[in-house]
Amino acid sequence: MKTRVAILGASGYTGLELIRLLLRHPQVEITALGSRQQENPHVSEIHPQLAGQLDLPLEPLSAKEVAERANAVFCCLPHGASAEMVAQLLAFGLKVVDFSADYRLDNQDVYQQWYGVEHPDAERLGKTAYGLPELYRERIKDAQLVANPGCYPTSAILALFPLLKSSDVKPDGIIVDSKSGVSGAGRTPKQAFHYPECNESVAAYGVGTHRHTPEIAQYLTDAAGTKVDVIFTPHLIPMDRGILSTCYAPLRSDQVDQVQLLDTLRSFYQDEPFVEVVDTLPATKHVSGTNRCHLTARVVNGRAVVVSAIDNLIKGASGAAVQNFNLMVGFDETMGID
Amino acid sequence: MKTRVAILGASGYTGLELIRLLLRHPQVEITALGSRQQENPHVSEIHPQLAGQLDLPLEPLSAKEVAERANAVFCCLPHGASAEMVAQLLAFGLKVVDFSADYRLDNQDVYQQWYGVEHPDAERLGKTAYGLPELYRERIKDAQLVANPGCYPTSAILALFPLLKSSDVKPDGIIVDSKSGVSGAGRTPKQAFHYPECNESVAAYGVGTHRHTPEIAQYLTDAAGTKVDVIFTPHLIPMDRGILSTCYAPLRSDQVDQVQLLDTLRSFYQDEPFVEVVDTLPATKHVSGTNRCHLTARVVNGRAVVVSAIDNLIKGASGAAVQNFNLMVGFDETMGID
Amino acid sequence: MKTRVAILGASGYTGLELIRLLLRHPQVEITALGSRQQENPHVSEIHPQLAGQLDLPLEPLSAKEVAERANAVFCCLPHGASAEMVAQLLAFGLKVVDFSADYRLDNQDVYQQWYGVEHPDAERLGKTAYGLPELYRERIKDAQLVANPGCYPTSAILALFPLLKSSDVKPDGIIVDSKSGVSGAGRTPKQAFHYPECNESVAAYGVGTHRHTPEIAQYLTDAAGTKVDVIFTPHLIPMDRGILSTCYAPLRSDQVDQVQLLDTLRSFYQDEPFVEVVDTLPATKHVSGTNRCHLTARVVNGRAVVVSAIDNLIKGASGAAVQNFNLMVGFDETMGID
Amino acid sequence: MKTRVAILGASGYTGLELIRLLLRHPQVEITALGSRQQENPHVSEIHPQLAGQLDLPLEPLSAKEVAERANAVFCCLPHGASAEMVAQLLAFGLKVVDFSADYRLDNQDVYQQWYGVEHPDAERLGKTAYGLPELYRERIKDAQLVANPGCYPTSAILALFPLLKSSDVKPDGIIVDSKSGVSGAGRTPKQAFHYPECNESVAAYGVGTHRHTPEIAQYLTDAAGTKVDVIFTPHLIPMDRGILSTCYAPLRSDQVDQVQLLDTLRSFYQDEPFVEVVDTLPATKHVSGTNRCHLTARVVNGRAVVVSAIDNLIKGASGAAVQNFNLMVGFDETMGID
Repeated sequence: MKTRVAILGASGYTGLELIRLLLRHPQVEITALGSRQQENPHVSEIHPQLAGQLDLPLEPLSAKEVAERANAVFCCLPHGASAEMVAQLLAFGLKVVDFSADYRLDNQDVYQQWYGVEHPDAERLGKTAYGLPELYRERIKDAQLVANPGCYPTSAILALFPLLKSSDVKPDGIIVDSKSGVSGAGRTPKQAFHYPECNESVAAYGVGTHRHTPEIAQYLTDAAGTKVDVIFTPHLIPMDRGILSTCYAPLRSDQVDQVQLLDTLRSFYQDEPFVEVVDTLPATKHVSGTNRCHLTARVVNGRAVVVSAIDNLIKGASGAAVQNFNLMVGFDETMGID
Repeated sequence: MKTRVAILGASGYTGLELIRLLLRHPQVEITALGSRQQENPHVSEIHPQLAGQLDLPLEPLSAKEVAERANAVFCCLPHGASAEMVAQLLAFGLKVVDFSADYRLDNQDVYQQWYGVEHPDAERLGKTAYGLPELYRERIKDAQLVANPGCYPTSAILALFPLLKSSDVKPDGIIVDSKSGVSGAGRTPKQAFHYPECNESVAAYGVGTHRHTPEIAQYLTDAAGTKVDVIFTPHLIPMDRGILSTCYAPLRSDQVDQVQLLDTLRSFYQDEPFVEVVDTLPATKHVSGTNRCHLTARVVNGRAVVVSAIDNLIKGASGAAVQNFNLMVGFDETMGID
Repeated sequence: MKTRVAILGASGYTGLELIRLLLRHPQVEITALGSRQQENPHVSEIHPQLAGQLDLPLEPLSAKEVAERANAVFCCLPHGASAEMVAQLLAFGLKVVDFSADYRLDNQDVYQQWYGVEHPDAERLGKTAYGLPELYRERIKDAQLVANPGCYPTSAILALFPLLKSSDVKPDGIIVDSKSGVSGAGRTPKQAFHYPECNESVAAYGVGTHRHTPEIAQYLTDAAGTKVDVIFTPHLIPMDRGILSTCYAPLRSDQVDQVQLLDTLRSFYQDEPFVEVVDTLPATKHVSGTNRCHLTARVVNGRAVVVSAIDNLIKGASGAAVQNFNLMVGFDETMGID
Repeated sequence: MKTRVAILGASGYTGLELIRLLLRHPQVEITALGSRQQENPHVSEIHPQLAGQLDLPLEPLSAKEVAERANAVFCCLPHGASAEMVAQLLAFGLKVVDFSADYRLDNQDVYQQWYGVEHPDAERLGKTAYGLPELYRERIKDAQLVANPGCYPTSAILALFPLLKSSDVKPDGIIVDSKSGVSGAGRTPKQAFHYPECNESVAAYGVGTHRHTPEIAQYLTDAAGTKVDVIFTPHLIPMDRGILSTCYAPLRSDQVDQVQLLDTLRSFYQDEPFVEVVDTLPATKHVSGTNRCHLTARVVNGRAVVVSAIDNLIKGASGAAVQNFNLMVGFDETMGID
């Protein structure tokens, strides 16, 4: 019997991508789609891509209604709203992958500082598995709730974690300069993402203030075993999807060269199905439409320059969520996303 | 002394393009910018492109206020609202180039049918100069009010007018299949023009219902001397600017060949500063950022296939407006737009 | 035991797409990749997307070598070269899906006229199954060789075939105005496809001379039962993939309305897994990355305007090829491409 | 009488942009176009944008032939070839703006190390004016030869020069992470710049090895008064034109804040016609098609993050060249590029 799953917040880009992946998943049946859309539109009215492929409405769903229809839930609600729903879903015994930022940070003060609201379910902070299987696979397998990582943090943490862990690089003065496609900004129309505004243009945004900063810092701190601060600068790129992160970290010593950096990365990721350490410089196109991360490293003027590429909607969101779901439910980790 | 001009509806893309052109115009001073924007923002807050180049606020302006500051007005207001303002501006003796559709059609029933409202200034219909100097230069020179053409009509009419006039093609079964960049849809954020919706995609819209249809038909009827209906199909293309119209019209006879079509076009446009009949197939990039139209014709299976390319924001809007303004005021027609 | 397949001409975009699809196909093993590339590069050197996913070189392969390693072949060679190889592959008893134009036309004179060379295997013309399963499924099931359709013909024929067959439209004056992403032009760098040449631009090309014209005409003739000529105008659009065809055909009578057109299309395609007749106007994005075709129809001024959208690399090439292969080998038609 | 100018290497994107600018320049007549193109094509065959606007062939021209037709030369030849031609042009008494890298570096060993060839005119190194008028205006006014800056160096040096000069930032560990449109790669078709390869993708290239590195370092060294090394990482962005440089430099002390950084930049550039220090984060679209640079600064974790935006073909190449030419000839600096 297939696992029945619900998707809450199904009207956005991550929702669409999740549906596409789950329709190909041999052990899953999508049984409910939640949304704040009025009038219970058919899913193909919201996502014309799905015409003829999934016959469900998008509807406002309570936790109880979800529990009656599904065993596992992908929750794509905004932060704050998500934690409120997640707490209820967990009480019904459901397994939950949460796409929001609500359970990613350990510390409720840090959460409040960056997200501007008090955390509605603070006791779970610090006890929730962070959904990067490459780092925390065993915790994910045992979890009822997994905090699906942010897209930028996925690209930055996969790039820098092994090198901080191995002490190839020092935890000071780390810079993450990231470039993202526009789908990362969500599906709600806004001036900044109106086609003629962001096409044929590049700009930085949220310099020093982007909410993924403390998330990156927390998991790099875990790697380094000492507090890591990062300068994180996201940029908006005129393309649909993809994140490239160019990460700069000072080498521990002059002895560390490119060969050593690549060796460290390769040995860290050697058994990983979705992380590929490559020799050439990665491009987001090389991983577009896949759950893969391509990584490489160079040495320039005493620093490691580590470049990683992911698809923000898949490895940076919905693909990672299915990967986490597979682990939580006991399926092969790559099922439906290979 | 320079001519003082005001721009009403200066916050959109045609407004920005107009400001850019007029800042380079040696005989013009921009003295007022009208907008329904609250709080009188500085123009560079709305158009960061203009930082350091123009020191004016965008402000709600009455016709009287405009008349105190300017001798000529470019009116970029929505249809309906435009006619109400234009009537007042004319009463103050101002010269007006109107970007809206309000004065382009001769017939108030046709206007009401396609625009869904009663015309607020119907008596001027049929008496207003249509701002295609290539066709109606003398009327424009004498006009106090000029109706600036729609972007699609400009591309279609310039392509087909000479061939209908010369009877090289027949006025039956004419098809205009147009492709436009997204700036043509205006600057207000909407789902359909959200970057990840229209990037990497092509779609037709408004099939059989686009409001530029009667405008194209009216001026082609003028050319043919008999009623012309057109099938007009606009498409949205993932690019900022440009319109390519591929126009199909049956040849008058088997004797008409490509040489004759090109001869007709060349002799019609031989003295025109902004229309170029070319041998190769035009691309919108070849006219992007200019007030030019590139045109060519082919014969396929008994039909003329005429292809025209313009920049929708310049020859299709703001550049044509300056061209019309130059004629109305008595300047060299190409001043500021060459 | 899985079916062993070879791909000849694996270095292009259709080759990459085919490899991606076949890697997900549960009953296929890719055993050989042919290419004229020098030095037998690893497939991931040519297609970095495949790093860690397929461990094969691209190598020059004779028909005999292919026969030793594979039971079925996807042949993505250029026209002319393809027929020479295909004839040999068939002699070895292999099943072949041919991506070239070599076996699509029935008539060798027409082939010679449009392709400029004598056909190297003319006796098979008119006897080869054309790989549109929606039209010719039974012939494909029994075939050793299938001619995979051109991308433009797929979009045009799926749009117009049912309406010509039903006589809803007349076979005169048919116009197909198509818009394609740049991947359709292949992977070899050329001036016209250099990024800054075709980005932010639209142009028609091959007006009246594109080689897909006789292919479209031949299968529409089959539908109409009488000779059909078409005016086919392809356009290059600044996007990676996707074809939108806007097709114009005169209605048989004034009685035919939009409801009837949609009914005809829906009843023709009602059991088809990959063709969806939709109410709204299709966009190429809605089918991007899939083997699906979205279709709709409108009535304007006495003509049917039928709009179809496909992914040129999938339903227009590699997905259709897998669909054909599944039928030829006896697998479920949708295997690996659903 | 207008100044007669020649453009050598007129077939590329900088050549086209230069022609466009010079056609609008009131004091210039273009009298000769040099190119290695065979068969002396008309300029509109190479640049269809110029149909009807300039009636000249592209032809192979010796220095002597250039001297007979022009008083000033814009030389857009590749490095090495450029220096050989420039030396001859100077001997004929012509004024020259050289677009190549040949005269930008002071030191012939550094040149040889990065460009791989011996410098053909090494004695002029260190004596040639560097064409950033914002820094070296007086030298440019007196020069017979000006080395037009590289596009990336323009964006990086304008961002960091004032802050190093003022000692607001320290000259250690400077990182320049730049994002460029594809026109920066030139007009010759190559696999990496084939539309479907670089569209919808971002990648870094030349990490640690890009030839603009020593040029940036040399002029930042001039600012700091002590040797400056930089880590320079260029990225290719799917857009036609524009460079955004995100520059990271450690603050001199904790006292330095954003206000001070902006004050330093504003006072440095207060009289500059083409550099605008803005409050909001700049976007390349805001300067596209102009000779302007938009700049701002932020403080994050003890570092200045300075972001600059230019149009790589104008302020990064042809516009700067006209600006330099105006200074050399004695025209108003902004003539033709305002």
